[in-house]
Amino acid sequence: MTSRPDAPPPADFTEDTVTDAVVASFDRTPDARLRHCLTVLTRHLHAAVRELEPTLAEWQKAIEFLTATGQKCDPVRQEFVLLSDVLGVSALVESINHRTGSGATEATVLGPFHLTESPRRRPGEAISEVGEGETCLVTGSVRGTDGRPLAGATVDVWQADAHGFYDVQQPGVQEPGNGRGLFTTDDSGRFWFTTVVPAHYPIPTDGPVGELLAATARHSYRPAHIHFIAEADGHVPVTTHIFVAGSPYLDSDAVFAVKRSLVRDFTEVTDAEEAAEYGLTPPYRHVEVEIVLEPAPEDSR
Amino acid sequence: MTSRPDAPPPADFTEDTVTDAVVASFDRTPDARLRHCLTVLTRHLHAAVRELEPTLAEWQKAIEFLTATGQKCDPVRQEFVLLSDVLGVSALVESINHRTGSGATEATVLGPFHLTESPRRRPGEAISEVGEGETCLVTGSVRGTDGRPLAGATVDVWQADAHGFYDVQQPGVQEPGNGRGLFTTDDSGRFWFTTVVPAHYPIPTDGPVGELLAATARHSYRPAHIHFIAEADGHVPVTTHIFVAGSPYLDSDAVFAVKRSLVRDFTEVTDAEEAAEYGLTPPYRHVEVEIVLEPAPEDSR
Repeated sequence: MTSRPDAPPPADFTEDTVTDAVVASFDRTPDARLRHCLTVLTRHLHAAVRELEPTLAEWQKAIEFLTATGQKCDPVRQEFVLLSDVLGVSALVESINHRTGSGATEATVLGPFHLTESPRRRPGEAISEVGEGETCLVTGSVRGTDGRPLAGATVDVWQADAHGFYDVQQPGVQEPGNGRGLFTTDDSGRFWFTTVVPAHYPIPTDGPVGELLAATARHSYRPAHIHFIAEADGHVPVTTHIFVAGSPYLDSDAVFAVKRSLVRDFTEVTDAEEAAEYGLTPPYRHVEVEIVLEPAPEDSR
Repeated sequence: MTSRPDAPPPADFTEDTVTDAVVASFDRTPDARLRHCLTVLTRHLHAAVRELEPTLAEWQKAIEFLTATGQKCDPVRQEFVLLSDVLGVSALVESINHRTGSGATEATVLGPFHLTESPRRRPGEAISEVGEGETCLVTGSVRGTDGRPLAGATVDVWQADAHGFYDVQQPGVQEPGNGRGLFTTDDSGRFWFTTVVPAHYPIPTDGPVGELLAATARHSYRPAHIHFIAEADGHVPVTTHIFVAGSPYLDSDAVFAVKRSLVRDFTEVTDAEEAAEYGLTPPYRHVEVEIVLEPAPEDSR
C-alpha cells in the first residue's frame, strides 16, 4: 500500500500527454487495420474535443444523445444509420467506395429501411399492393461498363408508397413486402415491374435524430426516389436510388444522397397501344432505369 | 414528374462537395454554440472518414458497435461513458475543464459507477458494510486555495470493495449504498470515515467496450482508488480520485485517469493509542486526503 521501489512510476495523464497515451495503448492490436482505424479516430476525436473544449454538461449531453440513439434502434429502426445519413457520413462513405469514372451507375446511400428481405417477384409483377397513388411502370436493364447486358443479375428494389411511408413504418396498414421486390434480369439483361410513383417523405423524426434536425432548423425531407441494389457475377454491386425529376427537396435532401446523374423523368404515358404491351391502362407514368456495373477487381472474383 | 423550369436544380453531393454541404445545413441553427459544435464535429468526422476510407462493411461494423454500446446502457450501466473513458476522452474533457495551476486538487474522471445517490452518513461512519478486506481509516479536509478550511462542504465518496466490485455491480451480494457515503465537513473543514482498502479491478468487459479492449490486446484494469466529489459554496467543485500507492496498473490505467498528484500512501497503523482515538483496533491502514478547491469565478457565484 506504499510504493514499492521496483514498481514502474505512476502515469501522469494530462491534457498534454493523454492523446499520445491512448494511441500508444493500441500498439499491440493484432489487426493492423483496426489499429490504424482506432489511431485515426482517436486523434480526430481528441482534436475535436480540444477545439470545442466542451463543458462537462455538454459532454454529458453528448453521452445522452448517443445512448438515446442506440436505444432507439430495433429490428426495423436503425437510428445510428439515420444519424450517419443526416451528417452526410453515409453519403461520403458511399462516394469513397464508388469512385468510378468508368461510366458505372453512381452509388448513393442504403438508408435505414433495408432491414427486411424483399419478396422475390416475377417479371412485371406489381411491387405496390395497396393501390393508392399514380401507377408507374419501371423498365430497366443491367449491363456492364463494356455495354454487354448482364443476364441473371439481381435487382433489389424498395420504395415508399404514394403517402411517403415504407411498409416497415406502417405494420397493420401496409403488408410486409409492400413496395419491395427482388427481380432477376432476363437473357437481355432486362427487368420490369409496376408500382406507384413514390412520394417525397420525411425521415423518421420521433427519435434523437429528429431532435437534432429540429434543434438545427433543418427540414427532414427526402425527395421522391426508388432504391435499387443491383448485383451480377464478376461485377461490383451498386446501392443507389433513382430520383423523381421535379420532386421537392431535390436541392436539399436531408441525407445528402442526391446525385444529378440519378434524377430521371417519370414521363406520362397516354398511348393505349404502348400501354397494352405491358397490360396497363393509360394514363400512367413510365421510367426507364439503366444500371451499369463495373467489373470486379481481378483479385475479388 | 418532369423538371419544372422554375425549380432549383437538383443538388449533386459528391466526395468533393458533401462536407461543405453538411456544414452549410447547420447555418440556421438558432443556438450558436450548438452550430459551432456540429460544424467542428462534422469536419473532424468527415476528415477521419476521408483518412480511413472505410469499406461499407467497416462502416456497418462501426454502426453495429455504436448501436450495441447504446443498447448495453441501463440505469446502472453506462457503456458510452465507459467508451469515452477507454478512449481517454473523459480524461481529456476533465483536464480541459480543470486547468487550475492554482494549487487546487487535480480533477479526474467521474467513471460509470456514480449512477446512484450516495447515502448521507455521520462523521466517522463506515461506508463499507460487508466487512471483508483490510480496514482503512480515511481522514480528510476541504479547504480553499487561500488555505482557509471550508466548513459545510459536501464530500461524496464511492469505491469498490476489497474484491474490486461496486455495489451496483452486485445486487443481492452488496447492499445498495455499500462503499458509498455523502459527508459534510465540520467547522474545521474536516471529514472522516472508515472503509476497506479498495482493490484494483477490471472495468466491465461483458459489453462492446470489453470486446474493443480484447481486440486491441489491452487489459481492462484500473489501479485501486477511492472516488471523491467535493463541493462548497463559492468554489468550483472537483470530481477526483485518490489512488492507492503501490497498486498494480498505476502506470497503465485502462481509463487514463491517473495523475501523479493524486497517489497517496495508505500507511499501516499499529499504534493502539492512535487507533483508540478513532475507536479502531490496530492494525489498519490510514490515508489523509486534503481536497483544495479554487474560488468560483465572480460571475457564477
